[in-house]
Amino acid sequence: MEQKPKVAVLLSGAGVYDGAEIQESVFALLALEKHGAEAQCVAPNIEQHHVINHLTGEEMPEKRNVLVEAARIARGKIKSLSEVSPSEFDALFMPGGFGTAKNFTKWAFEGAKGAILPEVANFIRAMHQNRKPIAAVCMAPTVVAKALEGTGVKVKITVGTTQAASPYDIESVNLGISETGAEAVACNVGEFALDAENLIVTSPCYMMEASILEVFLGVENTVIKLLQLCRSQIELV
Amino acid sequence: MEQKPKVAVLLSGAGVYDGAEIQESVFALLALEKHGAEAQCVAPNIEQHHVINHLTGEEMPEKRNVLVEAARIARGKIKSLSEVSPSEFDALFMPGGFGTAKNFTKWAFEGAKGAILPEVANFIRAMHQNRKPIAAVCMAPTVVAKALEGTGVKVKITVGTTQAASPYDIESVNLGISETGAEAVACNVGEFALDAENLIVTSPCYMMEASILEVFLGVENTVIKLLQLCRSQIELV
Repeated sequence: MEQKPKVAVLLSGAGVYDGAEIQESVFALLALEKHGAEAQCVAPNIEQHHVINHLTGEEMPEKRNVLVEAARIARGKIKSLSEVSPSEFDALFMPGGFGTAKNFTKWAFEGAKGAILPEVANFIRAMHQNRKPIAAVCMAPTVVAKALEGTGVKVKITVGTTQAASPYDIESVNLGISETGAEAVACNVGEFALDAENLIVTSPCYMMEASILEVFLGVENTVIKLLQLCRSQIELV
Repeated sequence: MEQKPKVAVLLSGAGVYDGAEIQESVFALLALEKHGAEAQCVAPNIEQHHVINHLTGEEMPEKRNVLVEAARIARGKIKSLSEVSPSEFDALFMPGGFGTAKNFTKWAFEGAKGAILPEVANFIRAMHQNRKPIAAVCMAPTVVAKALEGTGVKVKITVGTTQAASPYDIESVNLGISETGAEAVACNVGEFALDAENLIVTSPCYMMEASILEVFLGVENTVIKLLQLCRSQIELV
């Protein structure tokens, strides 16, 4: 019987404006099970950068923990990132949401110069060094770029295209990606960009104007490619 | 061109233990779009009964608002239940989660005797009285039973079956359903129970031991049936 790939799903909270994008996260868990993988949610046990009221967009005067909030998406089935080892997993999936650029890096405030959380950087670097495939959607590809910054590896990633409607400034994010030493490639909703050399799959999802169905298809296509890469690597071992 | 049914998705927060079950909610939004409906998230603007740490299961010493937290699932695109009228919608979908039995009713603490929030009861009753189909999954069917309690209407609903594994006491919930005057019918994960007379579709989802894929299929099958009922009603008008 074929081995079931074990995939870490790295969450940055629960909510698009201060944590992991909930819909992308749930779709990743669904697509991973649908296509024969075993998902394990993980998140760093750290305080969120801040808490955003998702109705008004305003900051709320309270504190929340990334792991504790991410547990809402995972129905409690989640582990602290510090409790797991990259060696336990065959692949990594990173949903988007501002949590990737507020809690994992400070990109949302300082652009590409914003520091990355060492725990997250180490996990991503270890996966990459051990030829374990990585998928990242929405804003999460910028975290991969930051993690591999200065390692001499030039990854090709996408956060969208300037040729279609986006609520964000894709050109500016692309410039930031170049600053980290990575290469930004254009990609539309539902599609993914493949860096075959580095085993990295990325897809814009909600970085572009997208319907929930388009986002689901983007996540599912990304997961299918991730698991293809994953199974090829498992066979090589 | 066929009219696109407009469906209210009634959320009770964001997180299985104190709010709306996140995965069921996201799957409802996906399935509604996939099958040609327009979804509008709504939630009452009230304080949650309490806040549960989803990592430990323990109560947290803080307060959260049902509408503000539900906005995380809806990416901010949500309306207060008091701002909308049942007349704006062709159908209603209610995801589960303890929020249905803690914020909408007090069933989680007092069983079938627990009071229902008048705003929620009125909305459900108005939909039913106007022959607009209602879908409810997981624990949400108990809210429908409470809303129609004392109206003389005997609805047939399901929260699962005692013949398969469940993390909950299905027999006890079924007894409660009988107390409200409704009839509990048995149904397994992925299936739905149809009350054709009352235009009510219910499915157990996470009330039973279920995989995320089974829950998705349960939600999708429920949505397909809801929209069939909905289109039949629209044609009748």
